[in-house]
Parts: sequence; structure tokens; C-alpha cells
Amino acid sequence: MVEGIGASSGIAMGNAFVIPTWEWDFPDKLIDVTDLAYEFERLYDGIRSSKNEIEHIKQEFVTVLGEEQTSIFDAHLAILEDPIFMSEVQGIMQRQYKAAEVAVKEAIDKFVNMFDLLDDQYMKERALDIKDVGNRLLKHLLGVLEDTLPPRDHPYIVVAKELIPSQMVHLDPNQALGLVTMLGGKTSHVAIMARAMGVPYVLGLEGKLSTPIQNGDFLIIDGDEGVVYVNPSEELIERYTIRKSLWHKQHEQLQALAEVPAQTKDGAAFQLAANISTVKDLELALRNGASGVGLFRTEFLYMDRDSLPQEEEQFTVYRQAAEQMGGKPVVIRTLDIGGDKSLDYFELPEEENPSLGYRAIRISLDHTDLFKTQLRAILRASHYGRIKILYPMISSIEELDKANTILESVKQELRGESIPFAHNIEVGIMIEVPAAVIIAELLAPKVDFFSIGTNDLVQYILAVDRMNETVAHLYDPFHPAVLRMLKRTVEAAKTANLQVSVCGEMAGDIRALPIWLALGITDLSMSVQSILRVKNSLLQSSLKECSAIWRELDQCSSGKAVVEVLNKYLHPDVLAT
Amino acid sequence: MVEGIGASSGIAMGNAFVIPTWEWDFPDKLIDVTDLAYEFERLYDGIRSSKNEIEHIKQEFVTVLGEEQTSIFDAHLAILEDPIFMSEVQGIMQRQYKAAEVAVKEAIDKFVNMFDLLDDQYMKERALDIKDVGNRLLKHLLGVLEDTLPPRDHPYIVVAKELIPSQMVHLDPNQALGLVTMLGGKTSHVAIMARAMGVPYVLGLEGKLSTPIQNGDFLIIDGDEGVVYVNPSEELIERYTIRKSLWHKQHEQLQALAEVPAQTKDGAAFQLAANISTVKDLELALRNGASGVGLFRTEFLYMDRDSLPQEEEQFTVYRQAAEQMGGKPVVIRTLDIGGDKSLDYFELPEEENPSLGYRAIRISLDHTDLFKTQLRAILRASHYGRIKILYPMISSIEELDKANTILESVKQELRGESIPFAHNIEVGIMIEVPAAVIIAELLAPKVDFFSIGTNDLVQYILAVDRMNETVAHLYDPFHPAVLRMLKRTVEAAKTANLQVSVCGEMAGDIRALPIWLALGITDLSMSVQSILRVKNSLLQSSLKECSAIWRELDQCSSGKAVVEVLNKYLHPDVLAT
Repeated sequence: MVEGIGASSGIAMGNAFVIPTWEWDFPDKLIDVTDLAYEFERLYDGIRSSKNEIEHIKQEFVTVLGEEQTSIFDAHLAILEDPIFMSEVQGIMQRQYKAAEVAVKEAIDKFVNMFDLLDDQYMKERALDIKDVGNRLLKHLLGVLEDTLPPRDHPYIVVAKELIPSQMVHLDPNQALGLVTMLGGKTSHVAIMARAMGVPYVLGLEGKLSTPIQNGDFLIIDGDEGVVYVNPSEELIERYTIRKSLWHKQHEQLQALAEVPAQTKDGAAFQLAANISTVKDLELALRNGASGVGLFRTEFLYMDRDSLPQEEEQFTVYRQAAEQMGGKPVVIRTLDIGGDKSLDYFELPEEENPSLGYRAIRISLDHTDLFKTQLRAILRASHYGRIKILYPMISSIEELDKANTILESVKQELRGESIPFAHNIEVGIMIEVPAAVIIAELLAPKVDFFSIGTNDLVQYILAVDRMNETVAHLYDPFHPAVLRMLKRTVEAAKTANLQVSVCGEMAGDIRALPIWLALGITDLSMSVQSILRVKNSLLQSSLKECSAIWRELDQCSSGKAVVEVLNKYLHPDVLAT
Repeated sequence: MVEGIGASSGIAMGNAFVIPTWEWDFPDKLIDVTDLAYEFERLYDGIRSSKNEIEHIKQEFVTVLGEEQTSIFDAHLAILEDPIFMSEVQGIMQRQYKAAEVAVKEAIDKFVNMFDLLDDQYMKERALDIKDVGNRLLKHLLGVLEDTLPPRDHPYIVVAKELIPSQMVHLDPNQALGLVTMLGGKTSHVAIMARAMGVPYVLGLEGKLSTPIQNGDFLIIDGDEGVVYVNPSEELIERYTIRKSLWHKQHEQLQALAEVPAQTKDGAAFQLAANISTVKDLELALRNGASGVGLFRTEFLYMDRDSLPQEEEQFTVYRQAAEQMGGKPVVIRTLDIGGDKSLDYFELPEEENPSLGYRAIRISLDHTDLFKTQLRAILRASHYGRIKILYPMISSIEELDKANTILESVKQELRGESIPFAHNIEVGIMIEVPAAVIIAELLAPKVDFFSIGTNDLVQYILAVDRMNETVAHLYDPFHPAVLRMLKRTVEAAKTANLQVSVCGEMAGDIRALPIWLALGITDLSMSVQSILRVKNSLLQSSLKECSAIWRELDQCSSGKAVVEVLNKYLHPDVLAT
């Protein structure tokens, strides 16, 4: 049993599929001079097996992908035959008496770095090829026998050092039973996506495994407890099979709440909307009774591709969202790249502190073509449902004015072209920069709604990067300063008669429910997976019991004290056993 | 003339001393096969000249430094004779027909990277040697003839791609007339140090020079206008000689204010203290009439060395500060590393967003030995003057409680050892994390004073990294949100009857003076160079005229509007001509 951090709830059991990383972790083994011949034999064997494997994959894929797409495999074969590469490996073995895998790894590192240094896209891609084929060779040398492509015919649990959002896009939700990563954070985008997909996820295993998880190891992962069992006993498997079915039963109980109206015992009605990343999430959102889409993270439309999505493509996606949600509201946030999200084809400056840098609306206001294209697509789609626009990272009146001016010009364009759109489309801003909270009453008259993005807001209020493991324990959404900033935002919104919703991770945390009740926030948007759990708690809560809570919370001088107060109001979750 | 950004005022004229950087900027020149022999000749010439030069420097230094310290030069000579390195260079030239400097650079890059990859301190140092000697060779190949050591016998203007604080420590303040860097920011620590040293500094020349500044180029730099003249005409030199003398005259006028009490026309007395980095700054602080040291940045004691400074060494420095300042207060801020300040011998995690990461008090509370050593040294020094303790980056009650508990235990220790210290020593916190402002009235009862660090506070409130050139235009200390946060801090301090000072860059900005008057802040700490300019403005201000200003400022919805209001109250600076 290995204890990690549960990042997405649920239980998964299945065989590990290890996504190899460049960080091989094996000792820098030296060999005896008398073993050199044997070591060379191992090297040649490894090369042979790698080549056979590549040939095999190539044959398999050529029928599916066609000749052209499989040329990558020829490139890989060529590397295994490259005399410069091979003489480097042999040289390290002969001169430094290093084991074959050590020599291979050093040679790969060397060439990859040489290629990476050249500021040349072609050479950088060659560096990737060398990494890829080098990993395959290392795998054979180390006796890791499974292939590096996810199995397509049976389900698996993904194990990786670290996952990035674009890798998630590749996972088949029907085959990926669960996720395990050594690094990563609970509030990372990968974790958010895992929760949205309903895939159990345990992270933070770095340094906790005595031996690395191998391909094919049988794993049990418990996303609620945050533990992973590697090759567990039959008995434990049996126990978890029961637990899993129990979990599913409880899951079904929750599922039965999908059609129940979201309201407190004393009738305070809530909107529980879904945060989505792609239109693929819509179906589950509806199935879980989402009142709408409270946050459509459009950046995923821009990721994992070679060029900017054009207007027509975006329009089709936004229109689908609007139509599929029927008359329910769909809040589309304009592009939020930068920070921890980058695009391959859109060069962003290297930044010392990307979270305090060039991102979101700051980029959109600088690249008006990109921004206009998106706004045109959103406006056109607004004709087909109830779409709202949301600007991220607004920190000043000037930025908001600029964004609104651009929006107005796009509307003007569409009018000129007689293209239909919702002329009264609602426009809101994310409240996620502290400055926006402080000048909320100045921003309020210029928008139709506020959406509080607690993830970033907490990060900036406390000056703690939520992705940084060293300081993650200081990232506290229940810090009294955060509560006060929430209150201030709500007050400014109320004065301006503005609707205010919460769309950060905090919205999906049932502990926070009394806060929303006390503040009069009834509009929450959360990961699809959290909706029913929050509804379940909501149904057991009452506005009356929470009306006095603020006085208690306001007296707390620490996040710990706040959570203690909140725990008194916490309603048993059907999932808790 | 090249326009940059003035980062430290004053005029300097002299010859450029270019600190070479690893970023050589020359074309990837190919040569004709017939030129190969000539190119090899150039290479050998370059190697010969480099070796001669190194021998020469070695001879010169051996008398000063002794045999042992000069062994570095033997290592450099050995690299120039290294057959592997040289065959790599020759190989690139022969196989790829690249010019000698291109081949040398590629070979250096390759070896430096190989060595850097090995996680081995010794090899990393060899990588530095290769860089250093490689730079020397490139210099000879490119005909850059001056040496890479700063001249010791005549003054110079430092020109560099970028400077880091530890490099500043090496500059002889009597010889370094001015600074010019391609990159860098006005609020970087280097800029802060330049202002403290009174050295004119122009930065941000990247991409603005048609040809790079060469060693020995004659430069005029105008830190007030933010311009640099490279090899100017005689006429311009004459004009600037006059301007410089005028500047000095005005400087003398300001100097005459050193002994004048710092107060408004209507008698509101101010404390204008100095921000210092080392005890070397004390003399100038006193000469400029500083009311005390408002911020002693102790991290510079920890920088540019091999190991942590021990208690005795720190004690000596703090005691000197206390004694040299006589009865004037000396506010010692505990170690603020992390963020943009690192220590060679103290490993910090690689962070995606260091400004939101592991820094300042977060490190001190984790490394209590380090923290206790510093607190012991400060407490012991408190016996010799009027020392106060200042904790940086406090964001919660828990952190403050922990720090105070440690302080109490150190006091207990000293009492046990009968070591004298000021038992009633005042303890304050930096208000630089937004959370600290929001819970200021909770923090207030636990401290003796607040010190507002506007640099970081503005950065977090606006979510803008002040060092990041792409978003620097969004870094606005006059943003209405910042003003409101300042007000909130002052109000919390007043309620608790606490003294509050401002020690960020904003304190030295004469435009901000009406804000302090309106808020009732009379305690400012700034770079030594700013004290007399601020005093000059203060002497022309009146509390009466500023009492009504807050209402005007409070109505501003943008930083631009705030500055417009402030400009109405701006008193002509004697320096403006």
C-alpha cells in the first residue's frame, strides 16, 4: 500500500499502463572489463528487439493510418542504425565501463540536448524521436516489456511521473480506469479533468514507492482515501470489489438525485452548473442534472493541435454546447492560456513567474485578431441557445473597457453582415485577481455578472502557487482573508444588483456550502462529478441554520478555525462510509 | 542615441566595460572550402592570443593572490590544449564548413551542456571554466580585445546583457561610473542597489542597438532621461559635461537639505529612513540625513559566499549597524531569500512561480536553525542600539505565531546564557501579501509595527510580476485597488494604535507623497538616493492641501486618473530642469 493524495474520487482496479518518462531511475552501474562482451551482447539484443517491435507496430498501424503516417517508425528505425549514435554508446561503454542502459541514457541525453540547443523546429522534433526510440531501447534493456502505446483492446490504469492536460485528451475514457502520478497537485488541470471525467486519480507518490510500478502490475486505486495498492493480495482484491460495488451503489443513490431540484430543506433554490473543457463533457453534465454550463474552458479547443482554431470550427463547438444544453445557460470563458497552459503553435515569452505574467485577457487584448475570432464565434452561437461571455483575469477598468469595446466592434461587424446573434448577450468577468475584488463596485456597472474563480483568487491573495508542492500546505481556500474577499465581492455585486457565481474548485467542496448560504450565493459551477454530491449536501442543509454562521466565521483567525466551524454544519455525505 | 529606461538617476560619462555573456550574437557563418586553411589559422591565432592573455593575467595576479588562487588559470590553459575539445571544434569546421567562432561556440555549448547534465558539482564547475575560457577565445576570434576583468586602474561604465545582485557586490563603487543593461527592470534588485549606490543606470536596451556596445566605446548615460549615447560627438560630450555639472550643483542643493528636519510647510514631521543592503550603505544613509534604517535587507549578508553566515559574523554586522546609526532605529528584516533571490549553497526547489513559492518567512519557519541563528544575532546586537525585527511575507496568524514562538525561545536561551539584549525589542511584519492586508486587524495585536512592502504587495494585488517585461506596463502602484489596500492597512494599524511605515519603491516616489499625507503615514523608508528628493518635495507640501485629496483619489477608477490627481499636487523638484 502506498499513500498518496486522492485527487479524484472512486475506486479503480486493473493493470498498470506505465507512460514512460524521460526520467529513468536506475543506478549508474559500472561493469567489469570482463563483462564488456556480454554487455555489448545485451545492447545488440536490445536494439534487435526494439527494431522488431517498431516493425511490428508499424505493420499494425499501416492498415489503420496509411503509409504516410507511419513514416515516423522508419525514422525511429534509422536512429537505431545511426553510426554516430551507436559509436557514442559503444564509446561510453568501452571507455568508462558503464552498463549498456547507462551508456544509452547518456548518449540520448547528449544528443537530445545538442538537438534541443539548436533553435530549429526540425531538429527539436528529431530530439523527440531520439527520446522516444531511446526510451524504447532502454525499456528493452531494463526488461520492461509492454509497449508504450496505451492498450486499445482492454482497460488500464495510467501510471506516469506527471501528466499534462494535452495527454489527458488522448486517453480513451472507456479504457482509462484510473490515474496514478508521482507528481502533480489536487488542483492541477489534470486533476480537474479527472474529476470531470469521473476517473479515480491518486497523485503524489514520488519517493514513496520502494520499486517503480511496472507495466502490467495489478493496481487498486482508491481516490477517496488517496491510496494505491500494487499487486495486492486476493483477499484485498475481494474486499475492494465489494467496496467498489458499494461505491457504485452509493453513486447510484446520488445519481437518483439528478432530477431532484437543487434546494435547501427550507426551499432556497440553487443553480448547480458544470465546469466543462470540451463538448464531450456535456452529456455527463446533463445526466448529472447540471443547471447549465457555468464555465466553458475554451482553451482546450486551442490545445493539442497545430494552429489556432478558426471561427467556423469554434462556432460549431459553441453552437453545439448551446443547443445541447437546451435553454440552459452556457457561460463561455474567453481564451485563458499562459500561466500553466501553453499552446505549441503560439509562442509565449519565457517567464520567471507565469502565473503573474502574460496570460488570459492580457493575451487576448494584445492579439485582437485571435480575440475577435473567438468573440465572433461565440456571438454567432448565441443565436442558438443561452450563451453568456466571461472574460478571465480582469484586473482593471481599462482592461474591461478595452474588451467591451472590441466586443462592441464585433457585434457591429455581425450586424453589418446581417448575421444573427443574441443582441442582449450577457457579459461577465472572472473575479480572480485581488484587484478585481477591491474595485468590484467600479467594475460592476460595466458587466452583467461576476464569476468568482477561487483557484486563482486564493493563489494571489495568499501568494501561494497551488501547483507548488513545497508550499501547497499554505494554499488554504478557507483562510479568513479569502472569506472576506468573497464577502466583499458579493456585497459589491448586491449593491449593483448583479448576479454572482462561484466557479473555482471551492464551489464543488461540500464544506464550503454554509459559506455560500451565509453569503447568499446560490449560483455555483463545479466539476461535473461534484454536482450530485453538492446537491446531496444542499438538500440536507437549511438557509435558516446558516444565516447566523457568518458571525462565527468572521471571528475565526485561521483557516483551521474556519474549517472547524464549517464541519459543525457539514451534512453526512452518502459517500462517506 | 539609444532610448532605454532610466533606472537610477544621474549622468555618467566614460568608457564601456562590457561584461561578456554567454549569449554571443553573431551569424551562423558558413565558409567556403577554400577558406578552411585560413579559418584554421584564425582559430590557432585565437587560441595563442587567449593563452598569452591568460598567462599574462596569471602573472599579474600571482603577486596579489598567491599561487593557489591562480590555479584556475592553469585549468583554463589546459582546456585550450584539450584534444577532445579541439577535435570537436575542428570537426565542426571541417565537416560543416562553419566559421571558427561558430564552431567554437557550438563546441562550448555542447560540452557545457554535457557537463551541466551530470549532477556533479565538480563537473558543473568545469562547465563554468569551459564557458569562461570559451568566452575568452570567442572574444579573440571576434576581435573584442579588452579583458573580461573590470579595469582596476580607471573608472568605467558597466555594460551587460543582464546583471544579478551578486555581480553588483563585486563592483568597485569608486570605479563603476554607471550601468547599462539590455534586460532588467526598474524595480529589480540591481536597480534598487544602483539607486542606493548613486550609480546612474539605464536598462532595457535589448533590440535597440544596431551594433552591440564594444569594450572601450565612449558612453554617456543619462539615468534621468533613460538614454545612452554611444561614441557621441564632441559637441554632445561638452553639452553633457555642462549638464553633469548642473546635475551636481542641484545634487549639492539637495545635499544641503540633509540636516533640515523632514516636515511639511505646516509642520507635519516625517521619518525618512533608508533601505540598506549592507553596512557599507550606512555612511551614505547618514550623510543624506536618514532618520534611521527602515529596512535592512539581510539576505545580502547571505549572498555571494559558500556557506551560511554564522551567528558571530551576523552579530558583528548588526551591531555595527546599530552603533553606527547611534540612537536611530534600525529595522532588520529577517532573511528574504527565494523568489528572485537565491543562495548558491542553499538548495531551493525548482519552482514554476518562485514569487508564489518557497521564500522568506516560509523558509525561515521550515529551517529553524537558520532562523534562530539570525534571531540570536539580531537580539544580541539589540543591546548596542535601537534595533527592531521585521518578518517578511507573513500571510497568516499561524505563521506570525510560529515566528514569535521561535523568537521567544531564542530570548529564553539568551536569558539563560545571561547574554544582554533589548528585552522590549519591537517586532513588526511586512505587509506585502494581500491576505495580510485583509486580516491586518487580526495581525495587529500581535506585533509592534507594520511595514508595507509595496513592491510585492502591488505585484500580488494585480497579479503582475514586476520583473516581467511583457506585463510590466500593467504593474501600477497607483492602481485604485492598491490605494484602497494601503488605506485598509493604515486603518487597521490606527485602530490597534500601531505604527505603520512604507518601505517599498513607492516610498521613494515623490508623486506618492500626497497619498502618505492623506493617509497619515509619516514613516517612509526608501533607497538612500531618494531621501533628499523626497524631503525636498515634503518641505514644499502641506498637510492642509492634502487632507482633502483622498476624496478625489477615491473617485478615480484607474491608475492613470490617480496619477493625474497626484500631479496636481506635485511640487517642482529641484532636479527638474
